[in-house]
Amino acid sequence: MSHTAVQEQTKARPPLNGVDTPNLFATINAVAGNPPLAKFQFRARNSWVNGTHSRGTIETFYGAGSEHTHARTFTMDADHPAVLVGEDHAPLPVEFVLFGLVACVTGGIANIAAARGVTLESVEATVEGDMDLRGILGLSGDVRNGYESIRASFTIKGNAPDEKLRQIVEQAKARSAVYDILANKVPVDIGINVG
Amino acid sequence: MSHTAVQEQTKARPPLNGVDTPNLFATINAVAGNPPLAKFQFRARNSWVNGTHSRGTIETFYGAGSEHTHARTFTMDADHPAVLVGEDHAPLPVEFVLFGLVACVTGGIANIAAARGVTLESVEATVEGDMDLRGILGLSGDVRNGYESIRASFTIKGNAPDEKLRQIVEQAKARSAVYDILANKVPVDIGINVG
Repeated sequence: MSHTAVQEQTKARPPLNGVDTPNLFATINAVAGNPPLAKFQFRARNSWVNGTHSRGTIETFYGAGSEHTHARTFTMDADHPAVLVGEDHAPLPVEFVLFGLVACVTGGIANIAAARGVTLESVEATVEGDMDLRGILGLSGDVRNGYESIRASFTIKGNAPDEKLRQIVEQAKARSAVYDILANKVPVDIGINVG
Repeated sequence: MSHTAVQEQTKARPPLNGVDTPNLFATINAVAGNPPLAKFQFRARNSWVNGTHSRGTIETFYGAGSEHTHARTFTMDADHPAVLVGEDHAPLPVEFVLFGLVACVTGGIANIAAARGVTLESVEATVEGDMDLRGILGLSGDVRNGYESIRASFTIKGNAPDEKLRQIVEQAKARSAVYDILANKVPVDIGINVG
Protein backbone atom coordinates (compact mmCIF):
# COMPACT_ATOMS: atom_id res chain seq x y z
CA MET A 1 0.00 0.00 0.00
CA SER A 2 1.54 3.35 -1.00
CA HIS A 3 1.84 6.27 1.38
CA THR A 4 -0.72 8.20 -0.66
CA ALA A 5 -3.20 5.33 -0.60
CA VAL A 6 -2.86 5.14 3.17
CA GLN A 7 -3.52 8.87 3.51
CA GLU A 8 -6.65 8.59 1.39
CA GLN A 9 -7.92 5.74 3.55
CA THR A 10 -7.16 7.78 6.66
CA LYS A 11 -9.71 10.33 5.57
CA ALA A 12 -12.24 7.72 4.54
CA ARG A 13 -12.36 5.48 7.62
CA PRO A 14 -13.87 6.51 10.97
CA PRO A 15 -13.34 4.43 14.13
CA LEU A 16 -15.06 1.03 13.85
CA ASN A 17 -15.24 -2.22 15.87
CA GLY A 18 -13.69 -0.34 18.79
CA VAL A 19 -10.63 0.30 16.61
CA ASP A 20 -9.39 3.88 16.39
CA THR A 21 -8.91 3.57 12.64
CA PRO A 22 -7.54 7.09 12.06
CA ASN A 23 -4.93 6.39 14.75
CA LEU A 24 -4.13 3.04 13.10
CA PHE A 25 -3.44 4.72 9.77
CA ALA A 26 -1.54 7.55 11.48
CA THR A 27 0.70 4.89 13.07
CA ILE A 28 1.31 3.23 9.70
CA ASN A 29 2.13 6.63 8.19
CA ALA A 30 4.48 7.55 11.04
CA VAL A 31 6.40 4.26 10.76
CA ALA A 32 6.52 4.48 6.96
CA GLY A 33 8.18 7.88 7.30
CA ASN A 34 10.58 6.81 10.10
CA PRO A 35 11.35 3.05 10.02
CA PRO A 36 13.30 2.99 13.36
CA LEU A 37 9.94 3.66 15.07
CA ALA A 38 9.00 0.10 14.06
CA LYS A 39 11.58 -1.44 16.42
CA PHE A 40 9.81 -3.03 19.41
CA GLN A 41 10.98 -5.22 22.25
CA PHE A 42 8.49 -7.15 24.38
CA ARG A 43 9.39 -8.64 27.76
CA ALA A 44 8.21 -10.93 30.53
CA ARG A 45 9.50 -12.10 33.91
CA ASN A 46 8.73 -15.34 35.67
CA SER A 47 9.29 -16.71 39.18
CA TRP A 48 9.04 -20.33 40.24
CA VAL A 49 6.38 -20.79 42.95
CA ASN A 50 6.28 -24.53 43.76
CA GLY A 51 6.25 -27.77 41.79
CA THR A 52 5.35 -26.91 38.19
CA HIS A 53 3.60 -23.70 39.29
CA SER A 54 5.17 -20.36 38.34
CA ARG A 55 4.04 -16.74 38.15
CA GLY A 56 4.80 -14.27 35.40
CA THR A 57 4.68 -10.51 35.21
CA ILE A 58 4.48 -8.30 32.14
CA GLU A 59 5.11 -4.63 32.72
CA THR A 60 7.32 -2.76 30.24
CA PHE A 61 8.19 -2.77 26.55
CA TYR A 62 10.15 -0.66 24.12
CA GLY A 63 8.73 0.66 20.89
CA ALA A 64 8.10 3.69 18.68
CA GLY A 65 11.39 5.14 19.91
CA SER A 66 10.83 5.03 23.67
CA GLU A 67 10.21 2.92 26.75
CA HIS A 68 6.59 2.17 27.70
CA THR A 69 4.86 0.85 30.79
CA HIS A 70 1.58 -1.03 30.44
CA ALA A 71 -1.54 0.53 31.99
CA ARG A 72 -0.97 -1.91 34.88
CA THR A 73 1.41 -4.75 35.68
CA PHE A 74 -0.15 -7.90 34.28
CA THR A 75 0.39 -11.11 36.24
CA MET A 76 -0.37 -14.65 35.10
CA ASP A 77 0.27 -18.12 36.46
CA ALA A 78 1.15 -21.36 34.72
CA ASP A 79 1.03 -24.91 36.06
CA HIS A 80 0.54 -28.51 34.99
CA PRO A 81 -2.64 -30.51 35.61
CA ALA A 82 -2.59 -33.56 37.89
CA VAL A 83 -2.15 -36.02 35.02
CA LEU A 84 1.06 -34.14 34.21
CA VAL A 85 2.24 -34.16 37.82
CA GLY A 86 1.11 -30.64 38.73
CA GLU A 87 -1.61 -29.10 40.89
CA ASP A 88 -3.62 -27.43 38.09
CA HIS A 89 -3.47 -23.93 39.55
CA ALA A 90 -3.34 -22.41 36.07
CA PRO A 91 -3.09 -23.23 32.35
CA LEU A 92 -0.13 -25.10 30.93
CA PRO A 93 2.53 -23.03 29.18
CA VAL A 94 1.65 -24.78 25.90
CA GLU A 95 -1.98 -23.71 26.34
CA PHE A 96 -0.89 -20.06 26.59
CA VAL A 97 0.81 -20.51 23.22
CA LEU A 98 -2.48 -21.67 21.65
CA PHE A 99 -4.33 -18.73 23.19
CA GLY A 100 -1.64 -16.35 21.92
CA LEU A 101 -2.18 -17.58 18.38
CA VAL A 102 -5.95 -17.08 18.24
CA ALA A 103 -5.83 -13.81 20.21
CA CYS A 104 -3.24 -12.41 17.80
CA VAL A 105 -5.25 -13.29 14.70
CA THR A 106 -8.43 -11.96 16.37
CA GLY A 107 -6.84 -8.57 17.09
CA GLY A 108 -5.72 -8.45 13.47
CA ILE A 109 -9.22 -9.28 12.24
CA ALA A 110 -10.66 -6.32 14.20
CA ASN A 111 -8.03 -3.92 12.86
CA ILE A 112 -8.29 -5.10 9.25
CA ALA A 113 -12.09 -5.11 9.30
CA ALA A 114 -12.07 -1.52 10.58
CA ALA A 115 -9.56 -0.49 7.91
CA ARG A 116 -11.83 -2.02 5.26
CA GLY A 117 -15.01 -0.43 6.64
CA VAL A 118 -16.54 -3.72 7.81
CA THR A 119 -18.54 -3.76 11.05
CA LEU A 120 -17.92 -6.99 12.95
CA GLU A 121 -20.66 -8.79 14.84
CA SER A 122 -18.55 -11.57 16.34
CA VAL A 123 -15.27 -13.43 15.97
CA GLU A 124 -15.02 -16.82 17.69
CA ALA A 125 -12.05 -19.13 17.52
CA THR A 126 -11.10 -22.60 18.65
CA VAL A 127 -7.60 -24.02 18.54
CA GLU A 128 -6.03 -27.37 19.32
CA GLY A 129 -2.49 -28.68 19.31
CA ASP A 130 -1.32 -32.31 19.23
CA MET A 131 1.62 -33.42 21.31
CA ASP A 132 3.23 -36.82 21.91
CA LEU A 133 4.71 -36.72 25.41
CA ARG A 134 7.32 -39.37 24.63
CA GLY A 135 9.44 -36.39 23.51
CA ILE A 136 9.28 -34.45 26.77
CA LEU A 137 9.56 -37.60 28.87
CA GLY A 138 12.73 -38.63 27.07
CA LEU A 139 11.22 -41.94 25.93
CA SER A 140 11.85 -41.55 22.21
CA GLY A 141 14.52 -39.72 20.27
CA ASP A 142 12.21 -39.63 17.23
CA VAL A 143 9.43 -37.62 18.89
CA ARG A 144 9.70 -33.84 19.18
CA ASN A 145 9.03 -32.04 22.46
CA GLY A 146 6.52 -29.53 21.12
CA TYR A 147 3.31 -29.60 19.10
CA GLU A 148 3.31 -31.90 16.08
CA SER A 149 0.55 -29.74 14.57
CA ILE A 150 -1.80 -26.91 15.49
CA ARG A 151 -5.27 -26.36 14.02
CA ALA A 152 -7.30 -23.20 14.59
CA SER A 153 -10.78 -22.41 13.30
CA PHE A 154 -12.29 -18.93 13.10
CA THR A 155 -15.98 -18.09 12.75
CA ILE A 156 -16.53 -14.47 11.70
CA LYS A 157 -19.82 -12.56 11.39
CA GLY A 158 -20.13 -9.01 10.05
CA ASN A 159 -21.84 -6.68 7.57
CA ALA A 160 -19.97 -7.76 4.46
CA PRO A 161 -20.25 -10.47 1.82
CA ASP A 162 -18.87 -13.87 2.83
CA GLU A 163 -15.88 -13.53 0.55
CA LYS A 164 -14.89 -10.18 2.04
CA LEU A 165 -15.16 -11.58 5.58
CA ARG A 166 -13.07 -14.57 4.56
CA GLN A 167 -10.41 -12.28 3.10
CA ILE A 168 -10.20 -10.34 6.37
CA VAL A 169 -9.32 -13.53 8.25
CA GLU A 170 -6.82 -14.51 5.53
CA GLN A 171 -5.14 -11.11 5.79
CA ALA A 172 -5.07 -11.33 9.61
CA LYS A 173 -3.31 -14.69 9.29
CA ALA A 174 -0.90 -13.26 6.70
CA ARG A 175 0.06 -10.45 9.13
CA SER A 176 -0.08 -12.29 12.45
CA ALA A 177 3.05 -12.14 14.58
CA VAL A 178 2.20 -15.28 16.55
CA TYR A 179 1.25 -17.26 13.43
CA ASP A 180 4.66 -16.38 11.98
CA ILE A 181 6.43 -17.26 15.25
CA LEU A 182 4.83 -20.72 15.32
CA ALA A 183 4.87 -21.54 11.62
CA ASN A 184 8.49 -20.44 11.19
CA LYS A 185 11.63 -20.67 13.26
CA VAL A 186 12.71 -18.03 15.78
CA PRO A 187 16.28 -17.99 17.12
CA VAL A 188 15.93 -18.54 20.88
CA ASP A 189 18.87 -18.01 23.21
CA ILE A 190 18.67 -19.17 26.83
CA GLY A 191 21.27 -17.88 29.28
CA ILE A 192 21.94 -19.48 32.67
CA ASN A 193 23.11 -17.80 35.89
CA VAL A 194 23.79 -19.93 38.94
CA GLY A 195 23.51 -18.90 42.60
CA MET B 1 17.19 -43.56 30.42
CA SER B 2 16.28 -47.24 30.47
CA HIS B 3 13.08 -48.56 31.99
CA THR B 4 15.09 -50.25 34.74
CA ALA B 5 17.00 -47.09 35.54
CA VAL B 6 13.71 -45.21 35.85
CA GLN B 7 12.33 -47.82 38.25
CA GLU B 8 15.42 -47.59 40.42
CA GLN B 9 15.14 -43.81 40.57
CA THR B 10 11.47 -44.19 41.49
CA LYS B 11 12.47 -45.92 44.68
CA ALA B 12 15.27 -43.46 45.41
CA ARG B 13 13.48 -40.11 45.06
CA PRO B 14 10.89 -38.75 47.49
CA PRO B 15 8.71 -35.72 46.61
CA LEU B 16 10.83 -32.55 46.36
CA ASN B 17 10.35 -28.92 45.30
CA GLY B 18 6.60 -29.51 45.44
CA VAL B 19 7.01 -32.15 42.72
CA ASP B 20 5.45 -35.54 43.40
CA THR B 21 8.57 -37.32 42.15
CA PRO B 22 7.27 -40.89 42.61
CA ASN B 23 4.21 -39.93 40.55
CA LEU B 24 6.48 -38.35 37.91
CA PHE B 25 8.45 -41.58 37.52
CA ALA B 26 5.25 -43.65 37.62
CA THR B 27 3.98 -41.53 34.71
CA ILE B 28 7.19 -42.09 32.75
CA ASN B 29 6.96 -45.83 33.43
CA ALA B 30 3.30 -46.00 32.42
CA VAL B 31 3.94 -44.19 29.13
CA ALA B 32 7.05 -46.28 28.43
CA GLY B 33 4.90 -49.41 28.75
CA ASN B 34 1.97 -48.03 26.71
CA PRO B 35 3.07 -45.36 24.18
CA PRO B 36 -0.50 -44.35 23.11
CA LEU B 37 -0.88 -42.85 26.60
CA ALA B 38 1.60 -40.18 25.47
CA LYS B 39 -0.88 -38.72 22.95
CA PHE B 40 -2.16 -35.36 24.23
CA GLN B 41 -4.27 -32.63 22.68
CA PHE B 42 -4.42 -29.17 24.25
CA ARG B 43 -7.13 -26.63 23.38
CA ALA B 44 -8.21 -23.03 23.78
CA ARG B 45 -11.18 -20.89 22.75
CA ASN B 46 -11.23 -17.17 22.13
CA SER B 47 -13.95 -14.54 21.64
CA TRP B 48 -13.47 -11.06 20.27
CA VAL B 49 -14.58 -8.42 22.81
CA ASN B 50 -13.91 -5.01 21.21
CA GLY B 51 -11.09 -3.41 19.26
CA THR B 52 -7.97 -5.53 19.77
CA HIS B 53 -9.33 -6.93 23.05
CA SER B 54 -10.34 -10.61 23.17
CA ARG B 55 -11.02 -13.17 25.89
CA GLY B 56 -9.84 -16.76 25.93
CA THR B 57 -10.96 -19.82 27.87
CA ILE B 58 -9.06 -23.02 28.54
CA GLU B 59 -11.10 -25.87 29.91
CA THR B 60 -10.50 -29.36 28.50
CA PHE B 61 -7.71 -31.46 27.07
CA TYR B 62 -7.15 -35.04 25.96
CA GLY B 63 -4.31 -37.19 27.22
CA ALA B 64 -3.25 -40.44 28.85
CA GLY B 65 -6.09 -42.16 26.99
CA SER B 66 -9.03 -40.02 28.12
CA GLU B 67 -10.67 -36.60 28.18
CA HIS B 68 -9.80 -34.27 31.06
CA THR B 69 -11.29 -31.08 32.47
CA HIS B 70 -9.05 -28.60 34.28
CA ALA B 71 -9.70 -27.99 37.99
CA ARG B 72 -11.50 -24.82 36.84
CA THR B 73 -12.11 -23.01 33.57
CA PHE B 74 -9.20 -20.64 33.08
CA THR B 75 -9.94 -17.31 31.41
CA MET B 76 -7.43 -14.80 30.10
CA ASP B 77 -7.62 -11.59 28.10
CA ALA B 78 -5.34 -10.18 25.43
CA ASP B 79 -5.18 -6.65 24.04
CA HIS B 80 -2.81 -4.13 22.47
CA PRO B 81 -1.38 -1.11 24.31
CA ALA B 82 -2.26 2.41 23.18
CA VAL B 83 0.87 2.80 21.06
CA LEU B 84 -0.37 -0.23 19.10
CA VAL B 85 -3.89 1.14 18.77
CA GLY B 86 -5.48 -0.79 21.63
CA GLU B 87 -6.79 -0.01 25.12
CA ASP B 88 -4.20 -2.01 27.11
CA HIS B 89 -6.74 -4.12 28.99
CA ALA B 90 -4.36 -7.09 28.99
CA PRO B 91 -1.00 -8.36 27.68
CA LEU B 92 -0.29 -8.62 23.98
CA PRO B 93 -0.57 -12.06 22.40
CA VAL B 94 3.18 -11.97 21.67
CA GLU B 95 3.85 -11.32 25.37
CA PHE B 96 1.92 -14.49 26.29
CA VAL B 97 4.29 -16.40 23.99
CA LEU B 98 7.31 -15.09 25.93
CA PHE B 99 5.69 -16.01 29.24
CA GLY B 100 4.87 -19.48 27.88
CA LEU B 101 8.53 -20.06 27.08
CA VAL B 102 9.94 -19.19 30.51
CA ALA B 103 7.06 -20.86 32.39
CA CYS B 104 7.62 -24.07 30.40
CA VAL B 105 11.35 -24.19 31.11
CA THR B 106 10.71 -23.30 34.79
CA GLY B 107 8.26 -26.21 35.24
CA GLY B 108 10.86 -28.48 33.68
CA ILE B 109 13.57 -27.19 36.00
CA ALA B 110 11.43 -28.07 39.05
CA ASN B 111 10.70 -31.57 37.75
CA ILE B 112 14.27 -32.32 36.73
CA ALA B 113 15.72 -30.94 39.96
CA ALA B 114 13.35 -33.17 41.95
CA ALA B 115 14.28 -36.19 39.81
CA ARG B 116 17.96 -35.49 40.52
CA GLY B 117 17.46 -34.94 44.23
CA VAL B 118 18.23 -31.22 44.14
CA THR B 119 16.26 -28.89 46.43
CA LEU B 120 15.57 -25.59 44.67
CA GLU B 121 15.67 -22.27 46.47
CA SER B 122 14.54 -20.06 43.58
CA VAL B 123 14.23 -19.91 39.80
CA GLU B 124 13.86 -16.47 38.24
CA ALA B 125 13.65 -15.76 34.54
CA THR B 126 13.55 -12.77 32.25
CA VAL B 127 12.78 -12.94 28.55
CA GLU B 128 12.67 -10.44 25.70
CA GLY B 129 11.76 -10.64 22.05
CA ASP B 130 12.66 -8.21 19.27
CA MET B 131 10.14 -7.33 16.60
CA ASP B 132 10.19 -4.91 13.67
CA LEU B 133 6.62 -3.77 13.12
CA ARG B 134 7.18 -3.00 9.45
CA GLY B 135 6.27 -6.66 8.88
CA ILE B 136 2.88 -6.55 10.58
CA LEU B 137 2.11 -3.10 9.19
CA GLY B 138 2.76 -4.28 5.64
CA LEU B 139 5.48 -1.66 5.09
CA SER B 140 8.27 -4.04 4.07
CA GLY B 141 8.24 -7.40 2.34
CA ASP B 142 11.67 -8.16 3.78
CA VAL B 143 10.64 -7.96 7.44
CA ARG B 144 8.95 -10.91 9.13
CA ASN B 145 5.78 -10.49 11.21
CA GLY B 146 7.01 -12.26 14.33
CA TYR B 147 10.00 -12.08 16.62
CA GLU B 148 13.38 -11.73 14.95
CA SER B 149 14.99 -13.20 18.07
CA ILE B 150 14.13 -14.19 21.62
CA ARG B 151 16.54 -14.13 24.57
CA ALA B 152 15.74 -15.64 27.96
CA SER B 153 17.91 -15.68 31.06
CA PHE B 154 17.44 -18.01 34.04
CA THR B 155 18.88 -17.55 37.51
CA ILE B 156 18.72 -20.75 39.57
CA LYS B 157 19.59 -21.27 43.24
CA GLY B 158 19.59 -24.65 45.01
CA ASN B 159 21.55 -27.11 47.14
CA ALA B 160 23.84 -28.44 44.45
CA PRO B 161 27.16 -27.47 42.86
CA ASP B 162 26.96 -24.76 40.22
CA GLU B 163 27.61 -27.22 37.39
CA LYS B 164 24.77 -29.50 38.48
CA LEU B 165 22.36 -26.53 38.69
CA ARG B 166 23.47 -25.39 35.25
CA GLN B 167 22.86 -28.88 33.82
CA ILE B 168 19.32 -28.89 35.23
CA VAL B 169 18.50 -25.73 33.25
CA GLU B 170 20.18 -27.17 30.15
CA GLN B 171 18.11 -30.34 30.44
CA ALA B 172 14.90 -28.33 30.98
CA LYS B 173 15.67 -26.43 27.77
CA ALA B 174 16.43 -29.69 25.95
CA ARG B 175 13.00 -31.08 26.97
CA SER B 176 10.88 -27.92 26.79
CA ALA B 177 7.80 -28.10 24.61
CA VAL B 178 7.56 -24.32 24.15
CA TYR B 179 11.29 -23.95 23.40
CA ASP B 180 10.88 -26.57 20.67
CA ILE B 181 7.72 -24.88 19.34
CA LEU B 182 9.50 -21.53 19.01
CA ALA B 183 12.93 -22.71 17.89
CA ASN B 184 11.49 -25.09 15.27
CA LYS B 185 8.57 -25.01 12.88
CA VAL B 186 5.08 -26.23 13.71
CA PRO B 187 2.53 -26.85 10.94
CA VAL B 188 -0.34 -24.45 11.68
CA ASP B 189 -3.66 -24.76 9.87
CA ILE B 190 -6.25 -21.98 10.14
CA GLY B 191 -9.79 -22.72 9.01
CA ILE B 192 -12.38 -20.02 8.29
CA ASN B 193 -16.16 -20.17 8.74
CA VAL B 194 -18.28 -17.22 7.68
CA GLY B 195 -21.64 -16.13 9.11
